[in-house]
Amino acid sequence: MLTEPTAALIIIGNEILSGRTRDANIQFLASGLGLLGIPLREVRVVPDIEEEIISALNILRNKFTYVFTTGGIGPTHDDITADSVAKAFGVTLKRHQPSVDKMERYYGDSLNAARLKMAHLPDGAEPIETRATSAPGFKIENVYVMAGVPSIAQAMFDEIAPSLTHGAPVLSRFVEAHLGEGDIADDLTAIQNEYPHVDVGSYPFFRSKRVGLSVVAKSTNQNDIDAVIKKTVAAIQRLGHTACVDQEVDD
Amino acid sequence: MLTEPTAALIIIGNEILSGRTRDANIQFLASGLGLLGIPLREVRVVPDIEEEIISALNILRNKFTYVFTTGGIGPTHDDITADSVAKAFGVTLKRHQPSVDKMERYYGDSLNAARLKMAHLPDGAEPIETRATSAPGFKIENVYVMAGVPSIAQAMFDEIAPSLTHGAPVLSRFVEAHLGEGDIADDLTAIQNEYPHVDVGSYPFFRSKRVGLSVVAKSTNQNDIDAVIKKTVAAIQRLGHTACVDQEVDD
Repeated sequence: MLTEPTAALIIIGNEILSGRTRDANIQFLASGLGLLGIPLREVRVVPDIEEEIISALNILRNKFTYVFTTGGIGPTHDDITADSVAKAFGVTLKRHQPSVDKMERYYGDSLNAARLKMAHLPDGAEPIETRATSAPGFKIENVYVMAGVPSIAQAMFDEIAPSLTHGAPVLSRFVEAHLGEGDIADDLTAIQNEYPHVDVGSYPFFRSKRVGLSVVAKSTNQNDIDAVIKKTVAAIQRLGHTACVDQEVDD
Repeated sequence: MLTEPTAALIIIGNEILSGRTRDANIQFLASGLGLLGIPLREVRVVPDIEEEIISALNILRNKFTYVFTTGGIGPTHDDITADSVAKAFGVTLKRHQPSVDKMERYYGDSLNAARLKMAHLPDGAEPIETRATSAPGFKIENVYVMAGVPSIAQAMFDEIAPSLTHGAPVLSRFVEAHLGEGDIADDLTAIQNEYPHVDVGSYPFFRSKRVGLSVVAKSTNQNDIDAVIKKTVAAIQRLGHTACVDQEVDD
C-alpha cells in the first residue's frame, strides 16, 4: 500500500481560544479532505503569538503531507500569519505585484498601506486567489495559508483542492440503535479485531430523550465496510434491538 | 504581577477529525475558563491513537497550569483515553470501588466487563462525578479528563471549576461598525501600542450582505478596556461611520 497523504490544520485565532467565536472551519475542511482521501490527522488552535505559530508550523509541516492554516491574513496589527510563515521558512515577505494590481482595481483610492500588507507574501509563495476577496491566501511548499472567515476559507480550499495529491477516498457507513455502548462493546471489539483496516467508531448520543448509539465504519474498502455494517446489525439484533442502517434511528 | 493560570484542551476524537461531528466543547470551555481568569492558550484535536494522545498530554501538561481532555472515556474498544493518560503518567489503571458501587446501582444486571472499564482510573486519580452519568471523569495532577458528549463534559467542568486556581477575570467589550478592517488598521495599531496590556482584536464580518468589523478589547483592567473602546469609537467617527458599542451594528 502506498503511503496515503495526510493533513493537519492550524487555526490561528484568539477569538476561538477566548470563546467569542465558535470554530466553523474544522468540519468543512475535515469533510472536504476526507473526500479527497487526505485524512485530517491533527488540528491545533494557537493564539496570535508569533513563536506559537512558527512552532506549530514547523512541527506539523514535517509530520504531515499538507498543512492548512486559517486566520490572521487581514490588514490589522493582529494579522501576523504571513510574517510568521515567512519566518518558519526562513524567508522574507515580498510584494506580490499581481495581487497589488488586483487590489488596486478593487479598492481604488481606499488602497492604503495597511491593505497593501495583504499583498506581501513569503518569498517563493504562490497566491491562492478567489472571487471571494481581492486579497490572496498563499501556498509555500506544503503549507496552505487561508483566511479565517469561513466563506473565504471555503472558497480558498475549493481553489486548492484540485492541485492536491489525492489518496483513496475514505468511505463511510453507519448503523444506529437505541442501546447503550456497554451492551455491544464486546461485539464491536470482536468486529474491529476481525477488520483491523476498518476504523470502527462508537458514538453514544441522547436524542429525543433516549440513549442511543451510532456505529461508524470508515475505510477505503467498500466490501470491508459492508461486512462490518452487516456484523454490527446482526449483533444489534441479537441484543433484541432494531438497527437503522445509514439513517438516524429517530427519523 | 503574579503568573496567571493557563489552560490547554485536548480533544480526543476521530469523529471531529473526520468531519462527522462538529466540535461543541471548545467554545463553552474557552468561555468558562475565561470567566475564571484561566485563559485557554491552546487546543489540539488528536485521533484515537495512544502515542498521539500521550505525546500531546506530556507536552501540554508541562507547559500549562491545567490540561483538559474530552472524549474517549466510554466502554468501547475506541475509548483509550484512561489507558493513555495512565501511560503518560507512568502509572497503571486501578479499579475505583466507589465508582463500581455507583455503576452497580445504576446498571444492575447490565453492568458487564465493558462498562466496568469506565470504573478503572489511573492510580492516584480522583474521580469527577456528576449527576449526568454514573461513569466518572477523573483528575490526575493537573490533567482533567472529561467525557466527549457536550452535556456531560459541561456537567464535569461545572464540578471541576470551583477547585481551580482562578486568575483575574478576563473582561471584554467590543465596538462594531460598517467599515473595512483596512480603513481603521493604522488607528488600531496606534491604540494597541498605547495599551499593550489590552488584547485588541479586529474581526471582519459579512452580515446582512454588508461588510463590517468588530473590534474586541480584552484585559483584566476595566479602565484600560474602556479607554481602548473610547479611542476606537473616536477613530470610527473620524472615518465618518457610526460606532455601536457592545452591541451588533445590524441590530
